[in-house]
Amino acid sequence: MRVGSLQTSNRLRCHSAYLPGEQPKTQGSVIKLNTNENPYPPSSTLTDAILSEIPNLNLYPSPPSVALREEIAQLHALDPNQVIIGNGSDDILNLCVRTYADEKLKIGMFEPSYSLYEVLAGVQGSELIRIPFSDDQFSIEPEKVATCGANLFFLTSPHAPSGRLYSRKQLSLVAQKFSGLLVIDEAYADFASENAVSLLSDFDNVLITRTFSKSYSLAGLRVGYGLGPARVISELDKVREVYNLDRLAQAGALAALRDRKYFQECLEKVIEQRNLVASQFDDFGWLHITSSANFIFVQPKSSEEKVGPEVALSLFEYLAENNILVRYFPKHPQTSSFLRISIGKPSEMSILINSIKSWRQEKQQG
Amino acid sequence: MRVGSLQTSNRLRCHSAYLPGEQPKTQGSVIKLNTNENPYPPSSTLTDAILSEIPNLNLYPSPPSVALREEIAQLHALDPNQVIIGNGSDDILNLCVRTYADEKLKIGMFEPSYSLYEVLAGVQGSELIRIPFSDDQFSIEPEKVATCGANLFFLTSPHAPSGRLYSRKQLSLVAQKFSGLLVIDEAYADFASENAVSLLSDFDNVLITRTFSKSYSLAGLRVGYGLGPARVISELDKVREVYNLDRLAQAGALAALRDRKYFQECLEKVIEQRNLVASQFDDFGWLHITSSANFIFVQPKSSEEKVGPEVALSLFEYLAENNILVRYFPKHPQTSSFLRISIGKPSEMSILINSIKSWRQEKQQG
Repeated sequence: MRVGSLQTSNRLRCHSAYLPGEQPKTQGSVIKLNTNENPYPPSSTLTDAILSEIPNLNLYPSPPSVALREEIAQLHALDPNQVIIGNGSDDILNLCVRTYADEKLKIGMFEPSYSLYEVLAGVQGSELIRIPFSDDQFSIEPEKVATCGANLFFLTSPHAPSGRLYSRKQLSLVAQKFSGLLVIDEAYADFASENAVSLLSDFDNVLITRTFSKSYSLAGLRVGYGLGPARVISELDKVREVYNLDRLAQAGALAALRDRKYFQECLEKVIEQRNLVASQFDDFGWLHITSSANFIFVQPKSSEEKVGPEVALSLFEYLAENNILVRYFPKHPQTSSFLRISIGKPSEMSILINSIKSWRQEKQQG
Repeated sequence: MRVGSLQTSNRLRCHSAYLPGEQPKTQGSVIKLNTNENPYPPSSTLTDAILSEIPNLNLYPSPPSVALREEIAQLHALDPNQVIIGNGSDDILNLCVRTYADEKLKIGMFEPSYSLYEVLAGVQGSELIRIPFSDDQFSIEPEKVATCGANLFFLTSPHAPSGRLYSRKQLSLVAQKFSGLLVIDEAYADFASENAVSLLSDFDNVLITRTFSKSYSLAGLRVGYGLGPARVISELDKVREVYNLDRLAQAGALAALRDRKYFQECLEKVIEQRNLVASQFDDFGWLHITSSANFIFVQPKSSEEKVGPEVALSLFEYLAENNILVRYFPKHPQTSSFLRISIGKPSEMSILINSIKSWRQEKQQG
């Protein structure tokens, strides 16, 4: 393609950039429930770990993030050569695309899902196969993955934006039937009751991705990782930018990882609020998917008991006017009558619920 | 390609990973002159800037690194839309490859040069055109770039590993004759007497890359940037990982950028040592390229006045035995009888020079 006088890669013809949730310029006045960040700051142990690295910043970091890699391996009872560290788990997803997809090797995903998969396929110039969910509960059929013709499949569990968890048994069926690389994107798995890590002992075609962004309160530090067969990790490693993770990120993530107590406390607080908000939505009589993540996907109902895109948009806009940011995905019929609301602090969630109540009342009067 | 039971992209058939200079495990006992790091720690203003960002790490960073981008634009008297921030300048080089190269659009470079260009071409599955230098002084002929058939050309100035600077006039000739995107990799430009930034007012096919790794003592923080026409920047931006730079890196780079006094002091100290070491090599009667970077590319001579790969390797190994790491590139005839030595602190350079003297004496006796 010619852009001005310069020719850009033909691979980019189907590409458009990833659109992140809004990052408000004035923090503090806004309750930010739109990008699934953890409402709590990171472990206080980060400060010392980071301070001690600052004088070394003139030196390049450890290319494979050695210390962090070993600690993560230990956490999951794996070998360090089954672990790869990324500049966010997005980095790992990108490495998968660059290694296991091209103009002939296709990428598969359930739609709707994390929209980055589509962006990465677009940059690689790879065909994207979109499999619809079997029902409005976002159920999956392993057979459809097996026969879709992809060489690389992204499966989000817990699913985004619904928060639905797929059982280890279901995922195991998918891995068994699918002949390509199955990437299980477990960005939200720490908030769930089970995860797929044990599948790594049974399958040589499964890669699991994790992130420090959500459960470790480190969205601002950009650290993620992949767990998989040594052979797959080694392939990804060849494509990885050699110094992909800076010294402060390596040190900070390691400190956060080691503070298990704080990690657990934050998890529990988020899960408690998630359950409270869920039961509040139940009281409203609002449909929501049982969430295993740090957000809730809910279908707002107007006071006339109506649901639909207009109702979702109305609440979305009402909350925004009241400085509460949530996420609305208008483009897909399975998401357009829902809102995705990240779980914040108790005070934030109670303001949210009160705002929702006001919206219901105002719409009743209006 | 089948690796185990999984098929990897055919694009990777010519790819092998980038091999960085050795990162010794025990720092302190080693004099590290092998990866062109700055011997001085970063500006002391980093500490406060970074500390103040730690409590915000639960929140995603600014996707385009807004504050840093504006400050860099100001530094170079450009518009912010002419600036893109990367996770190291390697990130920007990779964006160029993904945007302006593919299986049809070729990449050009002078050989030998920064070996990452080859790695990036390999991952993209693009053909790499290698243009030899006209002479052993690493002179370039603009006409050869113009007719090489590449859509994207990487030109390193000051050149690595020689340290040779190409004049603005020469680079201007290249930009004028070449119809593709000319990327001038100015990783070392802060150590040089001139740079190519003013070319941006005359050409719409020039992109300049810079890094904080060398002149700002921030190799460990992974921050680089690109300067170019707004149209090119916007194309690269579409391919950029949306949160490519973490909060601490954004804050740290901004603090380093603002401390102009410390930046100048470190530059001057490095340049002074470079000149001292250069005149020492002159005293030895050793050939070296006049360096405009923070390293010197020198051809060691044995006491019998011999030069060649055996001599270079002999000194390389002797220095390593004495805990001094320098870089040796044995694979190319224009580099195999040279060593590339990064400029360290005065104390380190004097140990280096003494070690070289001992080597000359020992070899004389031996």
